[in-house]
Amino acid sequence: MVNINKNFNNLSDGYLFANIARLIQEAKQKKPKLSILNLGIGDVTIPLSPIISDAISQATKELTNAKTHRGYGPSCGFDFLKEAISSNDYINLNIDKDEIFISLGAKDDISNIQELFDSNNKIGVSDPTYPVYIDSNIMAGKTDITLLPCNEENNFQIQPPNIPLDIIYLCSPNNPTGVSLTKETLEKWVKYAKDNDSIIIYDAAYEAFITSSAPHSIYEIENSKDVAIEIKSFSKKAGFTSLRCGYTVIPKNIKINSQELNKLWVRRCETKSGGASYPIQKGALSLYSEEGKKQTDQIIKTYQKQTSILKLGMEKKGFKVYGGIDSPYIWCKTLNNINSWDFFKMLLEKFNVVTMPGSGFGKQGDHFIRISGFTPLDIIYQMLDRINL
Amino acid sequence: MVNINKNFNNLSDGYLFANIARLIQEAKQKKPKLSILNLGIGDVTIPLSPIISDAISQATKELTNAKTHRGYGPSCGFDFLKEAISSNDYINLNIDKDEIFISLGAKDDISNIQELFDSNNKIGVSDPTYPVYIDSNIMAGKTDITLLPCNEENNFQIQPPNIPLDIIYLCSPNNPTGVSLTKETLEKWVKYAKDNDSIIIYDAAYEAFITSSAPHSIYEIENSKDVAIEIKSFSKKAGFTSLRCGYTVIPKNIKINSQELNKLWVRRCETKSGGASYPIQKGALSLYSEEGKKQTDQIIKTYQKQTSILKLGMEKKGFKVYGGIDSPYIWCKTLNNINSWDFFKMLLEKFNVVTMPGSGFGKQGDHFIRISGFTPLDIIYQMLDRINL
Repeated sequence: MVNINKNFNNLSDGYLFANIARLIQEAKQKKPKLSILNLGIGDVTIPLSPIISDAISQATKELTNAKTHRGYGPSCGFDFLKEAISSNDYINLNIDKDEIFISLGAKDDISNIQELFDSNNKIGVSDPTYPVYIDSNIMAGKTDITLLPCNEENNFQIQPPNIPLDIIYLCSPNNPTGVSLTKETLEKWVKYAKDNDSIIIYDAAYEAFITSSAPHSIYEIENSKDVAIEIKSFSKKAGFTSLRCGYTVIPKNIKINSQELNKLWVRRCETKSGGASYPIQKGALSLYSEEGKKQTDQIIKTYQKQTSILKLGMEKKGFKVYGGIDSPYIWCKTLNNINSWDFFKMLLEKFNVVTMPGSGFGKQGDHFIRISGFTPLDIIYQMLDRINL
Repeated sequence: MVNINKNFNNLSDGYLFANIARLIQEAKQKKPKLSILNLGIGDVTIPLSPIISDAISQATKELTNAKTHRGYGPSCGFDFLKEAISSNDYINLNIDKDEIFISLGAKDDISNIQELFDSNNKIGVSDPTYPVYIDSNIMAGKTDITLLPCNEENNFQIQPPNIPLDIIYLCSPNNPTGVSLTKETLEKWVKYAKDNDSIIIYDAAYEAFITSSAPHSIYEIENSKDVAIEIKSFSKKAGFTSLRCGYTVIPKNIKINSQELNKLWVRRCETKSGGASYPIQKGALSLYSEEGKKQTDQIIKTYQKQTSILKLGMEKKGFKVYGGIDSPYIWCKTLNNINSWDFFKMLLEKFNVVTMPGSGFGKQGDHFIRISGFTPLDIIYQMLDRINL
């Protein structure tokens, strides 16, 4: 008789978003005349740049012509895109194109990367955290997970612990706190990983939003190429959430018992995936043209402006606000020590305003809410106008 | 210290294609004036239908408009595509849209589907076989794999064994043999699965090429909705190999210890994937329009014609040929009992003709070569002209 993967039963209820959706429905019914202002979601709101759309259309049209038609693409991604990433995103950092793997989006690779590792490894994850780091490991029976606090006490700089961990997930700029890890913090982590023969999985999906002096890539840190995998996304900076494309860097330097991690990932991708869509990869390539850079910069600046108005507005109301400088998220402390869920519900019930309860991302996220600067300015102003506590 | 996933070391050398590529290079050097005729690959050769290209362009353009812009799509796929699949591909078979999951291509889901199951299951795979069934399981530490012969003795009708197996991969029309499983064979398998509480993973990627009375879907077989997952592809029938989109059906009827497999897969997709690209799903939708069906039919007919000319041509040369009736592949017995590799090398060295050695797909594939009917007609004629044994 067939047995299912019992690890599914160890997942916590996947109903954070479903719960929130239900509460939004209730709020709508209670105040049918007042619009719902949704500042909870982390999805993009600015339309796709025309240059990307044109590139995708042109690449698709190529496929209709017998001379330029293409079949299967390379499972690890097309060289044209890897070369553009290497020479633009890793200028002076010497990341070779064969160290870059085009993905179907950062979420997919963040979930899949654990396949490289044995189930006996000790895993470290920040608390609060993007839940995929934990859930993807639990589903694979990898349950030895240590939560590392990321809170006001350590200035949201998750610190290496006194115990050895084998795999550490770092997210910078952090989702949900919106705070980047400093160069100093990252140096500590790279040293820790070297000392303990551990691997860092570095999620830099929000890197494009950094305005402080925080590193944009972990490869700015000395020796990091021996220990760190970096995962990046086109989703947030270029509106790719519906297009699905990102990339993962696995330096050839990383060797475990003389096995190159890079080669294992090549084998994994070639065996298990057909890679990302050709026209979508051509769309991603267009981001690296002069016009593409200009259009992307404009989008990022708009989100940054929205986030800064949101941050200032909340501060003026007396809130203690973190994040929002290197990230489109602000991490806002609740008033009067109210817990996340109660505060979230109060904002929803009183003002029809949706945020994200911080404790949904982990215990250390309690007494915070995450508010999204992806929200269009008119909604932000309406929200600031409505909230009177 | 971090440990890698040791299961990678249990994979057989992944160099079948690399080996072939090297031999092709050598052949080129030996006969630089004679072109290489490649009938080995199973990739599509007819350009993409204009209707698909137009649909993708239009959907991408939508994303550039503030009113029609979209962010994250549903991880399990858009309803518009699931509904089209349900009402077209499962006409009279009552497959609900929520039983359909849009994938990033059949290969990706074939690889990922094993995540639903425990590592202690006994797995059955045909020999010869599409290697992904085996490799994806081995990488996940699922190594209890029984090979079930699929050969001339059983008319390429893989038969249920006398021992209980928990998970069985069936591929019909089969890659590499090109032969479909008959209704009678499938009925035996569904009965076997019911009797043994096993699950059938049914790969129907080549279903559109069937011209015999073989079932197009396993759901044509009574009781199959209790035991069978079906995986399908837009790759071969509609030239989607470079676009990446397919679908997987998991009926709600399938319950293991009262857990619905369908719900587990929803959880898996939502946790680990951002789903397929929106414009690509719109491209797939266009296949179900009247014009889309017409253009797709035309493509399939062209491949079928090529395959039938290939089959007849080889038969006229005295080869015993299987397949080619329900599939774009013919499975051609070598002459004089020569083994696959020697025969493959001989065709390459003497005539600069590339085929696929059958033993590359498993021991039972020895003494056969696979020849692809995706090959354009002028290449097929040249090949038939060149081969004189």
